Amino acid sequence: MLPIILDLTALKTAYASGMTPLDVVEEVIRRRRDLEDPAVFITETPDDDLRAAVRALLARAPEPNSLPLWGVPFAAKDNIDVAGLPTTAACPAFAYDPDQDATVIARLKDAGALVIGKTNLDQFATGLNGTRSPYGAPRSVFNKDYVSGGSSSGSAVVVASGLASFALGTDTAGSGRVPAAFNNLVGIKPTPGLVPNSGVVPACRSVDVVTIFAATVGDGIAVRKIMDGFDADDPFSRKALPTTLPASGLRVGVLAGSEREFFGNADVEALYDAAIERAKSLGATIIPFDYAPFRQAAELLYNGPWVAERLAAVEDFLATNAEDFDPTVRKIIEGAKVYDAVAAFEGQYRLGHLRQKTLAQWEKLDVLMLPTSPTTYKVDDMLADPIVKNSHFGRYTNFANLFGYAAIAVPGGFGSNGLPSGVTLFGPAFSDDALAPFADAMHRAAACGLGKDQTATLPEASKVVETDDGFVSIMVVGAHLTGMPLNHELTGPGGKFVKVCRTARDYRLFVLPNTSPPKPGLIHEPGYSGKGLEVEVWKVTPAAFGRFVQNIPAPLGIGKVTLDDGSQVSGFLCESYAVKDALEVTDLGGWRAYVDGSQASR
Amino acid sequence: MLPIILDLTALKTAYASGMTPLDVVEEVIRRRRDLEDPAVFITETPDDDLRAAVRALLARAPEPNSLPLWGVPFAAKDNIDVAGLPTTAACPAFAYDPDQDATVIARLKDAGALVIGKTNLDQFATGLNGTRSPYGAPRSVFNKDYVSGGSSSGSAVVVASGLASFALGTDTAGSGRVPAAFNNLVGIKPTPGLVPNSGVVPACRSVDVVTIFAATVGDGIAVRKIMDGFDADDPFSRKALPTTLPASGLRVGVLAGSEREFFGNADVEALYDAAIERAKSLGATIIPFDYAPFRQAAELLYNGPWVAERLAAVEDFLATNAEDFDPTVRKIIEGAKVYDAVAAFEGQYRLGHLRQKTLAQWEKLDVLMLPTSPTTYKVDDMLADPIVKNSHFGRYTNFANLFGYAAIAVPGGFGSNGLPSGVTLFGPAFSDDALAPFADAMHRAAACGLGKDQTATLPEASKVVETDDGFVSIMVVGAHLTGMPLNHELTGPGGKFVKVCRTARDYRLFVLPNTSPPKPGLIHEPGYSGKGLEVEVWKVTPAAFGRFVQNIPAPLGIGKVTLDDGSQVSGFLCESYAVKDALEVTDLGGWRAYVDGSQASR
Repeated sequence: MLPIILDLTALKTAYASGMTPLDVVEEVIRRRRDLEDPAVFITETPDDDLRAAVRALLARAPEPNSLPLWGVPFAAKDNIDVAGLPTTAACPAFAYDPDQDATVIARLKDAGALVIGKTNLDQFATGLNGTRSPYGAPRSVFNKDYVSGGSSSGSAVVVASGLASFALGTDTAGSGRVPAAFNNLVGIKPTPGLVPNSGVVPACRSVDVVTIFAATVGDGIAVRKIMDGFDADDPFSRKALPTTLPASGLRVGVLAGSEREFFGNADVEALYDAAIERAKSLGATIIPFDYAPFRQAAELLYNGPWVAERLAAVEDFLATNAEDFDPTVRKIIEGAKVYDAVAAFEGQYRLGHLRQKTLAQWEKLDVLMLPTSPTTYKVDDMLADPIVKNSHFGRYTNFANLFGYAAIAVPGGFGSNGLPSGVTLFGPAFSDDALAPFADAMHRAAACGLGKDQTATLPEASKVVETDDGFVSIMVVGAHLTGMPLNHELTGPGGKFVKVCRTARDYRLFVLPNTSPPKPGLIHEPGYSGKGLEVEVWKVTPAAFGRFVQNIPAPLGIGKVTLDDGSQVSGFLCESYAVKDALEVTDLGGWRAYVDGSQASR
Repeated sequence: MLPIILDLTALKTAYASGMTPLDVVEEVIRRRRDLEDPAVFITETPDDDLRAAVRALLARAPEPNSLPLWGVPFAAKDNIDVAGLPTTAACPAFAYDPDQDATVIARLKDAGALVIGKTNLDQFATGLNGTRSPYGAPRSVFNKDYVSGGSSSGSAVVVASGLASFALGTDTAGSGRVPAAFNNLVGIKPTPGLVPNSGVVPACRSVDVVTIFAATVGDGIAVRKIMDGFDADDPFSRKALPTTLPASGLRVGVLAGSEREFFGNADVEALYDAAIERAKSLGATIIPFDYAPFRQAAELLYNGPWVAERLAAVEDFLATNAEDFDPTVRKIIEGAKVYDAVAAFEGQYRLGHLRQKTLAQWEKLDVLMLPTSPTTYKVDDMLADPIVKNSHFGRYTNFANLFGYAAIAVPGGFGSNGLPSGVTLFGPAFSDDALAPFADAMHRAAACGLGKDQTATLPEASKVVETDDGFVSIMVVGAHLTGMPLNHELTGPGGKFVKVCRTARDYRLFVLPNTSPPKPGLIHEPGYSGKGLEVEVWKVTPAAFGRFVQNIPAPLGIGKVTLDDGSQVSGFLCESYAVKDALEVTDLGGWRAYVDGSQASR
């Protein structure tokens, strides 16, 4: 029996207990048939093709859960090539039959995932609302009067309705985040360049990003990791090391009062304030920051030369098929003709100036937390004022790809009108993984269900733990303790205090002779039974750790030390020859007690 | 008595021995008056202003050499603002009187340097040859028939003639490198974004770089370090950590046969081959690579939308003053009008595709070494065919700033015609410092004098030593040795083998029980006298070192190990409890001997 929402944990559990992908696919076919929103799919994978895909999977990987996405149904926005299904970009006259999968689709299929169809979108991914398509306007799963958000309008509904475990969107201005907010989903928007765009119809090619709609942050990150990786065919694909964030005590930037704009939507404003309170309760430091340079960059995306990239993507087609465009989309794209190359470069200069202004803000922040969308609208209201109301949705999204940030949109609960809202966390380029634990904790703390199932609880198994924040733990025992003479060697390169704790009982502590500043030597002696020694654990980046270790003089070194809870951590050891005639201070319980006593006795 | 060339070492020595900046400035005034090339300066700092600047310096910092550039005369290309002198960009009608210094000028003045004047250039820095200026064409200091190279034409001559210790240029296509090659100088071309452009008349603003002409690499790097640093007023200023390069055994990419093009200049070709031989003799591994994607990117700079940046820089002025332009420069800039914003973005896509192709080449290379210019021309020949012959100069330079590389041009000796030539070393973004030791070694090995003084020897004091390549040395004793099971933990993250050597005599080696793969334990026992143990030293980045240390299981750790030459290096140690009942193999002389014997006995 499958739950309403097909999150990865639920699916894995079902497979582990004997359900087969054939069962799941039949259920997906049923749900797809019963879906009440006729505008969600542009092309459905035919039932028999879906069954054939399952049989091929079982032939290739018969063991349950033997591939990372074994038997996981997903949908793709219809601007992403899937071999065997047409790509329309929501423009029937533009449609073509791709003969190969987009790189991301190929990687997901290799991992065992099953494509259930191609979803509706604002034509050529030009919009944030989902009404700009000849295939109709998908609706929020919570109220049929309201837009589902766009441009990845159908993909969000598919996941929120329980037809697929995840769905791919694309995000230039905010298309992978706004529909997540309107359908109580997580939207993973990778750093531009992390996930390849080969085989994706460009919107603004230099800032397009393939995204994931998922029930949980953990699900979305797991899918993204399968899609990640350099692709030489994508001119903007990048190789880079992950960016780390502090494991705790994040400095979270929030809208300062003067930049708060919800277009009259008190529900969303209240939910934003509630999210800020949740962040505080999770240990974050809340820091209002100046959103102005971000907003000014956001305005460049549609009211600046980048719109010429949309024209570049369809220039030949527009020349012959102008009448086949959605009128709003056509108006936007044709507006690009006024920009010459000088304007394009001047846009880069303007963006550069704004980027420098944001750096002053980033110096006091680790992440930004903004409303994903400041409001929402009914389909009819959107159609009556399609440019202005669409721009409202992008107020807090449009800057992200221009500045190269990673972002994760997480649900933030429901307003008095029964509609969901959410917040988006933004981090520096390639902080994609580092953002996830806090994003997941925020989602769990919101306790607002999964997609359309408002009462579902988030599965423990999908929890994103902070085990790998890229930092290295290091136990210090002597002159590096808080307040001691060498503590700056940890704090200088940005090290973070983690905890005071004790070693296991079988360690002994000695005062090393002739050291300046005075230093102890910690010796492991299995079988010895003392009371353990008070030590501190800190965290530093691998590079800082490397330099730290390099600077340690003999007879000290760094090995593995066992703590009183049985865990092992990198920490100070001492070569045994050096303690042969040294004063033992094990009984004092730690170096601090020795130092205090030795000062008191002066 | 000052030498012909005013390199920093000579000047510092003179100041230390009692000469004053007033003496130096009088000599500079004399040399400036006696300079036979009338086209070098556009504006000279008036004699009395120069004397006043010295008096102000002496009031501010009376002690000799008490500032990094205390009393050092320099010149600035006349597209860089110096308060009190007009900026013309070699276009008299464009001239204006800046009321403040460019950021780089302010930093150099703060460091004690003295501006002796503003130098000639190809108008609006549009050219690589130095003939496109109403102020005349500066000549190579070695032959008055020949161009000095451009666009920083006057700056190179000033340094090569001994009028200043260094001079600033700007480099978009190669303007900071080509004149260095034609005047036997070093040209330091920083990574775009490292040195601020505020107060510089833009050529192609997104790829403009302020450069330094100097007598030696050491001088140029010293000056660059004073100019470095983030400037929020420059939209392309960047903060970044330095990129490291291997300290030895550099893999140097050189032109493969099919990409060798010297336009019939056998002298330059022979000097390039000689430079390759010098690189080999300095320990480099020479690797022919595919220059095609670099060449194709180079072609984009003038034959692509980037020329619109030149138009952006002067668009208003061109509208009213078209007749005031150099005809060739005007033709180039007006050519930009054909490019629309679509073309500008399509240029980015093309560049991105080419960048991905270069990455495949970089995987096998650390640096590129190319002819700075494949040939040179007489002024009359250049004027007769100004576009095509200019493009020859850029064949091996134009790609550098589009790809964001660091570059250093170094002299490479003289051809049979008495004209100098040189090579340029290119490294990844922010490898500016890492490139310097090899560039300096190449320069010293060429032994071709300083500027116009072909018999001068390079001062030892300006030598760039490899003390800090950012890598961490690590001694391995067991399973990490070359060919052993864990060696991949060093090679995987890019570690480099340094040497085989022995520990000091007072170390003992034990076979640790129950380890997989088998591992030894190295114990320091002062007083013990064995024969030392064979070990290997490797180098890794600090981050890789940090991760390496973190992965070491107890009872092993990393401390300081003394080698048989008395030096200390980070390396493997073992907690002594673990060797209590262990087999000692010290007498075998090392772990490899033990492993070989133990396999042989099977």
